[in-house]
Amino acid sequence: MASVSEVKDEPGQPPALTSLSLAEAAQEAKSKEQIVTPFDVSGGLDELGNPKAIDYDKLVDTFGSQRIDKLLLDRFEKVTGHKPHRMLRRGLVFSHRDLNLILDKYEKGIPFFLYTGRGPSSDSMHVGHTIPFEFTKYLQDVFDVPLVIMLTDDEKFYHTPRLSLKDVYKFTIQNAMDIIAVGFDMKKTFIFADTEFVDGGFAAAFNNNVRELGKRTTINQIKGTFGFNDSNNIAEFAFPAMQSATAFATSFPFIFGTDPKKVAKVPCLIPCAIDQDPYFRQCRDNAPKMGYLKPAIIHSVFLPSLRGRESKMSASDADSSIFLSDTDNQVKKKVGKAFSGGQDTAEEHRRIGGRTAVDVPFQYLTFFMEDDEELERIRIEYEEGRMQSGELKMACTKELQAYVGGFRDRRKAVTEEIRREFMRPRQLVFRGMPAEKELQDARNKRIMTLEEELGKLKNAH
Amino acid sequence: MASVSEVKDEPGQPPALTSLSLAEAAQEAKSKEQIVTPFDVSGGLDELGNPKAIDYDKLVDTFGSQRIDKLLLDRFEKVTGHKPHRMLRRGLVFSHRDLNLILDKYEKGIPFFLYTGRGPSSDSMHVGHTIPFEFTKYLQDVFDVPLVIMLTDDEKFYHTPRLSLKDVYKFTIQNAMDIIAVGFDMKKTFIFADTEFVDGGFAAAFNNNVRELGKRTTINQIKGTFGFNDSNNIAEFAFPAMQSATAFATSFPFIFGTDPKKVAKVPCLIPCAIDQDPYFRQCRDNAPKMGYLKPAIIHSVFLPSLRGRESKMSASDADSSIFLSDTDNQVKKKVGKAFSGGQDTAEEHRRIGGRTAVDVPFQYLTFFMEDDEELERIRIEYEEGRMQSGELKMACTKELQAYVGGFRDRRKAVTEEIRREFMRPRQLVFRGMPAEKELQDARNKRIMTLEEELGKLKNAH
Repeated sequence: MASVSEVKDEPGQPPALTSLSLAEAAQEAKSKEQIVTPFDVSGGLDELGNPKAIDYDKLVDTFGSQRIDKLLLDRFEKVTGHKPHRMLRRGLVFSHRDLNLILDKYEKGIPFFLYTGRGPSSDSMHVGHTIPFEFTKYLQDVFDVPLVIMLTDDEKFYHTPRLSLKDVYKFTIQNAMDIIAVGFDMKKTFIFADTEFVDGGFAAAFNNNVRELGKRTTINQIKGTFGFNDSNNIAEFAFPAMQSATAFATSFPFIFGTDPKKVAKVPCLIPCAIDQDPYFRQCRDNAPKMGYLKPAIIHSVFLPSLRGRESKMSASDADSSIFLSDTDNQVKKKVGKAFSGGQDTAEEHRRIGGRTAVDVPFQYLTFFMEDDEELERIRIEYEEGRMQSGELKMACTKELQAYVGGFRDRRKAVTEEIRREFMRPRQLVFRGMPAEKELQDARNKRIMTLEEELGKLKNAH
Repeated sequence: MASVSEVKDEPGQPPALTSLSLAEAAQEAKSKEQIVTPFDVSGGLDELGNPKAIDYDKLVDTFGSQRIDKLLLDRFEKVTGHKPHRMLRRGLVFSHRDLNLILDKYEKGIPFFLYTGRGPSSDSMHVGHTIPFEFTKYLQDVFDVPLVIMLTDDEKFYHTPRLSLKDVYKFTIQNAMDIIAVGFDMKKTFIFADTEFVDGGFAAAFNNNVRELGKRTTINQIKGTFGFNDSNNIAEFAFPAMQSATAFATSFPFIFGTDPKKVAKVPCLIPCAIDQDPYFRQCRDNAPKMGYLKPAIIHSVFLPSLRGRESKMSASDADSSIFLSDTDNQVKKKVGKAFSGGQDTAEEHRRIGGRTAVDVPFQYLTFFMEDDEELERIRIEYEEGRMQSGELKMACTKELQAYVGGFRDRRKAVTEEIRREFMRPRQLVFRGMPAEKELQDARNKRIMTLEEELGKLKNAH
């Protein structure tokens, strides 16, 4: 989960104002094409050289994924017995690969697991970062499945010249605590930092999957997928095998059991921002060659920047996003300055109406406001000029203050002890978990290994 | 430590008959240039397209290493109080980088460590494989220093399509037992298989050095050094960072202590066949950027193939080398069929004399016979035609039977328990080892970690 430069950021971060409605697809001309990879997200340029919004509809075609349509959502609701999340209802989670297969298996009582992650590039997360985690939590609650969250500290280190391993690890700890504060169920969630997991003595199976994937992936493939060149370092090229290995249940014997043949049949569903799709396309290519199931994927859009489509995101530009550490007053100020789709004067606004498609506060409401009817009421009032920008911003401020405030309270409750427990490789509790005997065997084996080592250490003179 | 194809092999294997005497440098013509990399060893072709012996003298110039001369050998003897090994005396260990600096430090009582290795490509080792280990054992005995031996099972896996991780690990275990049978001192020697070490919970410091090296090494550099291209896999490209990380004492806190600043000053001496030099050139480039000392290197030639310079080595051609599992009778038969520098008839041989420079049995004597005077006597007698090929072959057979027989006896004594102990990350005993308190602290820290994990495992319901 990656970003190359300081001006871009990881999944869930607003790259520029996006065309949230799929109907909003811009026409192509002599303009610059859009680029969406884990390392480069840009909507391209129009004929006048102005930045364009990302065309998600086109992405679905380019990437060859499936649109999430009403039929699939109806089935989702029928199978799970839960109303689809507002992000599903509003097309913010808009595309997938094999979600239908996951529903098939879920119907038959076959367990699966969720996998998402984050590249810890700084110690402060913003609401754009938590959006995919919110949605993941919803999926975990609805399906009652185990979840693994990968914090790619190694990759951030490889891609960021100025950062040391120590720097990135510090971010990782802070980010983990923020992610925990989203509200994940400890009994069902394993969070890991790549370096700590790889080095810690529990990752032999994971590391072997990384090796198998590494052997099957050529330099050519990485260049084609990520746009790297011969000046990139070898660790950057090797990293995608890490991100892929997490999509296989066999990488986590302490969760799924130790019988590789049985565990290979546990499927994976990956909720992620669409820019991460290239990683998992590559993973899906390799999976059958390794005797594994292809992971299913469910794609979300990016949360727009507060500054709108003309601005570039910058980590040093605090006004481009709402941080989880922002006070109520900071939230209010930032929303107040956000890019508006309203008209220049109140008079004109009443006459022409506001443009919700480019109005950042309105877009934020589509992400954060749960009430469909209220959102629709606001849309109509605003577009028809009966609601002014100030009023819309106030509604948005209220939602965001509630969101950030709720997060703040939960974050206070996350102690270092809780974080360590979330990040400890251990048995999880979920529907269809491996038989107690099998887990007990794995545990006993590990206990024996540890006791043998302890004995030798204690007897050493 | 690597080989790409089946027809070539790892360090220490005879690629073709070599010009063992540095005075034997062949003249260049329109012929094909020699290539020596860890993945390709060939002496090139002469004007008629015939394979040529490797020109070691030219390699020293190409690689930019230093020749080991009489002055250095005299100093070696003075500093260590030991007669230089026969391979040093006879120019079979012929080139170095910074060996003088190692002697400087040794004189001042500064500890260093030895590092060598092997790529476990099959379960049977031959005498060409043990030669570098014999020499390493000599260095360990003379200097009383710790030694780490790296078995690059991961790399063999990446480079060999037909081999699974399981296959290579089986070779690794067998090879480790063979290497132990060379006679290394258990108290001073740590042998590790890459996968097992990386995964085992003791390699955090090692893995971090791999990460630091990976971040500093571009695809361009690997292409330039090893001749890979975009069809090679990402794991092959990433591997050199593993082989380099072993050259830093900080990778082994359980041996050298846990104070990185102090441990960074412990130098490394790498005895290896010359084909491994590219790995360590790259390592030496990176070392200062990481605050580490450049490892010193000491290069050996390859043991010639029994078939002489015209033949290519092949793992499936048992007659090209003496295996450690060969019986006395097999040794006798193989030496009998070895390429001879003698003349076609006994009469002609008496008249013209034998050519020791191309005579494989004579070359083998230079590797295995300890007695300088006896070797010189044989050389003169043979070159002047007074000794026939049969007699020379008999002398060679006797030496090799003694060598293989001695190995066979020691190998029988190597139990699985002994192997496991050699391969267990642990404290070693040597001159200038870290203070007991420091090691005790490291041990106590590890004990606490293990006990914490054990406690949680045991309390898990």
